[in-house]
Amino acid sequence: MTVLGGGSWGTTVATLAAANAPTVLWARDPEVSREVAEQHTNTKYLGVRRLPTELRSTSDLSEALAKADVVVFGVPSHSLREVVREAAAHIRPWVPLLSLIKGLEPNSRLRPTQVIAQELPGHPVGLLAGPNLAREVLDGYAAAAVVATVDADVARALQPLFRSRVFRVYRNEDVLGSEMGGVLKNIIAIAAGMADGLGVGDNTRATVITRGLAEITRLGAAMGADRETFYGLTGMGDLMATCMSPLSRNRRVGEALALGKGLEEINVELQQVAEGVKSARTVMELAAEHDVVMPIAAEVDAVINDGRPPVQAYRGLRRVAAESEHHAVA
Amino acid sequence: MTVLGGGSWGTTVATLAAANAPTVLWARDPEVSREVAEQHTNTKYLGVRRLPTELRSTSDLSEALAKADVVVFGVPSHSLREVVREAAAHIRPWVPLLSLIKGLEPNSRLRPTQVIAQELPGHPVGLLAGPNLAREVLDGYAAAAVVATVDADVARALQPLFRSRVFRVYRNEDVLGSEMGGVLKNIIAIAAGMADGLGVGDNTRATVITRGLAEITRLGAAMGADRETFYGLTGMGDLMATCMSPLSRNRRVGEALALGKGLEEINVELQQVAEGVKSARTVMELAAEHDVVMPIAAEVDAVINDGRPPVQAYRGLRRVAAESEHHAVA
Repeated sequence: MTVLGGGSWGTTVATLAAANAPTVLWARDPEVSREVAEQHTNTKYLGVRRLPTELRSTSDLSEALAKADVVVFGVPSHSLREVVREAAAHIRPWVPLLSLIKGLEPNSRLRPTQVIAQELPGHPVGLLAGPNLAREVLDGYAAAAVVATVDADVARALQPLFRSRVFRVYRNEDVLGSEMGGVLKNIIAIAAGMADGLGVGDNTRATVITRGLAEITRLGAAMGADRETFYGLTGMGDLMATCMSPLSRNRRVGEALALGKGLEEINVELQQVAEGVKSARTVMELAAEHDVVMPIAAEVDAVINDGRPPVQAYRGLRRVAAESEHHAVA
Repeated sequence: MTVLGGGSWGTTVATLAAANAPTVLWARDPEVSREVAEQHTNTKYLGVRRLPTELRSTSDLSEALAKADVVVFGVPSHSLREVVREAAAHIRPWVPLLSLIKGLEPNSRLRPTQVIAQELPGHPVGLLAGPNLAREVLDGYAAAAVVATVDADVARALQPLFRSRVFRVYRNEDVLGSEMGGVLKNIIAIAAGMADGLGVGDNTRATVITRGLAEITRLGAAMGADRETFYGLTGMGDLMATCMSPLSRNRRVGEALALGKGLEEINVELQQVAEGVKSARTVMELAAEHDVVMPIAAEVDAVINDGRPPVQAYRGLRRVAAESEHHAVA
């Protein structure tokens, strides 16, 4: 199999796969691919962690893909389409294509699997997702993920490729729901971070996360996803790991906003714009189109895009009228 | 309204209610009731926090109940039946009865609302539950809870009694599911605590909590509850607050077990036996009766009741075969 993308998660997934099948990691940066191939490290993204000697690596796309019978895309969402186009000529027919990417394409609002399917029609397309911090997985901590493909037989065939003694792989046929979980959790993680920054306690944080999951589930269901998916590893699991992890960029953005920092300052500190910041307005557009009320996401969007002070946003969250738990409009 | 039970949560709920309606707190201990009535504090349970001057308090059950048009039970699960029996003669007909209690009656395995309904038939019975740490609520941190009654009109009438600017109250008609969430989360919180104690990272913790919620949802559904309830405040919300809070007894039990401490030593340290320790075997009995596979709960039960070392239990959790996410048998 071949993993395209030598960042922290691409390298980690390639490491998992290398234990089960011959695996090649493609990194655009020749220094990274040489280091992975020869030193068995990827210091830029993963520090001193040792990678398996069986894991091969190259910066030559045609070489990387020549023998691939599974192709995994682990590049940033904004460069996905370009990489798929470059790769297209080298990918053999019928080979399953899996995305590791969490984020919609700018402007088109397409999900990564949709971008891949547009550029490479005729392949089974799916994703591998879950509450996965690359460093923890590489360090051998137990974790679990989901392979989602429309055809359960394809997922069943892919599961063993990523499995290890400490990494469990489930499958799910709801590609839309599994993929949207990873997109929508980010805005809720910002809200949870704002709660942390305001020092509002474990109750409030649990409430924000629980009601946040309820609202992203409503949007996902309105878009056609299976509600149950949002209660699994790619929804609740990923949301929780993101909201609890001190490392999560989206959570840190919320925390910094609550402490009174400006967005530009935060983006500089984090050295990149967090996914939830980029996608907040898009999520609100989707909510409007599908006629779904999302009070928590709306407050986060107002803070990010309309300069609403976080303390006011937080008051706004509290003011929401509480109705039936299942059928809440708010 | 009258709240029976002058512990931390009973006192907190009485405080919330006192802002909306004349409220009496009954505490069996005359020193507690006198302090609440005269000093407006409950130092034994709530430190220096000020209680509202409108909140009345007495240790005389007949006086406490004489004018009550709503009665709330906030006593420990093991003394509930006795308190209901004592109170029965003083409670007016038709008055709604609400439980704050999270735990099954020893031996009978009855839920608190079932015990109340047995001893006081003919009243609407329900509960108020959610991710609520008494101190945080009293300190004015935002939180949310659910009033669950079979008749939605009763819940709708009760919602305004507990509501405040920072305390949202939802309603739910699934009494069984809302009540079982509070019981079943404890065993999962012990598992999450074990994960913390073993230092296994945020992924693993998120995975244990997510898959743990999936298995308690399976049991609840098999018992007749609504699956959705487990994804709300009384299920996921309460579970998450319990697993994240440094104060949670059940989480601390798991952590201490993982650090190699014995149960007796832990019980002494915590000054009481945590609910999850008491209920682990009962949960496994319920799982067997309803033919539900609960691998995480089973490992916790084995550690608590069969002396299995936590490290082995943790390995056991990892070994579970991963199948379809929705229809997992494990």
